[in-house]
Amino acid sequence: MPDTRTNTPLPPRSVIGILGSGQLGKMLAQAASRLGFRVHVYSDDAGPAFDVATRQSVGSFTSFRRLDEFAASVDAVTYEFENVPVAAAEHLALSVPVRPGPRALAVSQDRIVEKTFIRDLGIAVAPFAAIADAADLAAGADAQSRWGTRAILKTARFGYDGKGQATTDSADTLNDAFEALGGVPCVLEQRLSFQCEVSVLVVRGVNGAAVTYDIPVNAHAGGILRRSMVPSGLPTSIESRAREMARSIADALDYIGVLAVEMFYLGENAPEPLVVNEIAPRVHNSGHWTMDACAVGQFENHIRAIAGWPLGATDRHSDVEMRNLIGHDVDAWPSIAAEPDACLHLYGKREARDGRKMGHVNYLKTLTS
Amino acid sequence: MPDTRTNTPLPPRSVIGILGSGQLGKMLAQAASRLGFRVHVYSDDAGPAFDVATRQSVGSFTSFRRLDEFAASVDAVTYEFENVPVAAAEHLALSVPVRPGPRALAVSQDRIVEKTFIRDLGIAVAPFAAIADAADLAAGADAQSRWGTRAILKTARFGYDGKGQATTDSADTLNDAFEALGGVPCVLEQRLSFQCEVSVLVVRGVNGAAVTYDIPVNAHAGGILRRSMVPSGLPTSIESRAREMARSIADALDYIGVLAVEMFYLGENAPEPLVVNEIAPRVHNSGHWTMDACAVGQFENHIRAIAGWPLGATDRHSDVEMRNLIGHDVDAWPSIAAEPDACLHLYGKREARDGRKMGHVNYLKTLTS
Repeated sequence: MPDTRTNTPLPPRSVIGILGSGQLGKMLAQAASRLGFRVHVYSDDAGPAFDVATRQSVGSFTSFRRLDEFAASVDAVTYEFENVPVAAAEHLALSVPVRPGPRALAVSQDRIVEKTFIRDLGIAVAPFAAIADAADLAAGADAQSRWGTRAILKTARFGYDGKGQATTDSADTLNDAFEALGGVPCVLEQRLSFQCEVSVLVVRGVNGAAVTYDIPVNAHAGGILRRSMVPSGLPTSIESRAREMARSIADALDYIGVLAVEMFYLGENAPEPLVVNEIAPRVHNSGHWTMDACAVGQFENHIRAIAGWPLGATDRHSDVEMRNLIGHDVDAWPSIAAEPDACLHLYGKREARDGRKMGHVNYLKTLTS
Repeated sequence: MPDTRTNTPLPPRSVIGILGSGQLGKMLAQAASRLGFRVHVYSDDAGPAFDVATRQSVGSFTSFRRLDEFAASVDAVTYEFENVPVAAAEHLALSVPVRPGPRALAVSQDRIVEKTFIRDLGIAVAPFAAIADAADLAAGADAQSRWGTRAILKTARFGYDGKGQATTDSADTLNDAFEALGGVPCVLEQRLSFQCEVSVLVVRGVNGAAVTYDIPVNAHAGGILRRSMVPSGLPTSIESRAREMARSIADALDYIGVLAVEMFYLGENAPEPLVVNEIAPRVHNSGHWTMDACAVGQFENHIRAIAGWPLGATDRHSDVEMRNLIGHDVDAWPSIAAEPDACLHLYGKREARDGRKMGHVNYLKTLTS
């Protein structure tokens, strides 16, 4: 992919192109505007990011003609979700820098490719088996017997927020789960007994320099992130190792922007204390606390990275707990707005459907006065 | 002015109308979006706020027809500058809540009205004399002799950033200064010998509850604010008195939103340690540090107030120094972006003219790691 402008920082008033119009796109657009950039959002639907951008385009991710018009209007392109078609990213990259690059998309869109990629870096992932047909199912059942634990079957592609997943107890339920998920290519993972889930948000710039944020510990329910708490309480040596792992993955992808690396912490004395669960080539829900507890939050640092700017300080000034507002949680906005330690973020979505992320609250634990 | 919705908080997705499209309008719009509101900016020119709003209208502040269209599209109106014609605000207020109300505009648009209003509250202002004609000039010269100090002649209306001001040493220069300012109504003020200038940012909600931010000490050059530093270093008792004075003014105006009250500090032992210089019925440059050093910054709190929401915490988590980027100061953005304690805000204005506010930087002094 030609990218002649790789190391020249984009000046203020340049136009940042964002693929996707959800809340992550909205918060990216706001961060870009704060740095003096203009923003053009391209999406197949009109989401909340459209309300805070200079320009908006509704178009398909498969229409190269529409994508060409978009590319001609922007100085760099980034994305808010990892299911942007790789072909779209590759096509855009012919005429404009696309950051992170198409490779990060390709790796993270397929769980089998992703796990293999990470394992090949010498970084631990949960034991897994690719499941595409009857022979794989038999091998998967054998693997599950060997592990001696429950396992999780996940579609290789297009899963998010716990969708496209099923727990299996035995060879029989494995077959049923595979059918239930539509017989599409899947990955069977050993279900590890872990102490907690953490994530590392690493930001890598165009010159290869990388910084990480403090590490949150994450709580899920129903497959959806509910809370992220910082500090994590993990031993310092473990946190250092987690940061190193995330940097290695970012380096191996020659990554530009914020990369989220979710990990399971199995305990200090486990043979592998940290096991990577999955990566997301974008800003991440478990980093929303950085907006109010850090000098420079994840959204601004992503924009800085993709614009070729120096990265901002990831220093944290406050302990913090982020809570998601899912579905009708958001109806409590009047009382949340009255809580003295609450930094409230509402995405402005039209309808509070079940499971839909409507906003989040950062509770600052260390206000001084 | 009818305002039937005074005490009902506006729900998310309501439309906030903002008069004026400059950097203050931009930062107000961004804060409103963060709370899930949509924003419609109305201005006689297309400034930076247009890039971050859901909807934009270019129109005159004297066209009631255009203002009616605007009013019909919004749920509440606020403004980013105090020279909105009072007639426009009054007209809008016939059909939609305008906050702060037209009265705050009327008082703050005329220095003579403003100073008289404040003095009548029992709050100290610098000794002054209204100057409209030859008789006033003679009386003003007498007053200046009595004060025994230099004085400042200011146009009663439309001054900002040091424009519309002249220093006078004597009765002779007073006449010249009055001519130089165009012979328009002016106010002659005693030039006080003060230790520093501070400002109080008070936020008052629809129910009359008010909160204040910590008090910055402000440094000007060429009539333009350059830096605001917090904490101010003033004695606690003085700061308490300053907060009280600002609250009294807000109460007397039945004010809704952020009100900035600039004061001179004459020293603990002066007969009047604090003297009000001027008020601004809007968010204020000397409050920009709140964006990065407080749980809830001035822009969000202004939006909360005018939307009838509970006010947010004004607690400060970090010591901070705000520096304005004036004119070509902004050309240093690449090096400022690399400073580890700098929170950078660029307004995205097209051209860096002399004296033009192009951005600001908040230097956080108390990063923890």
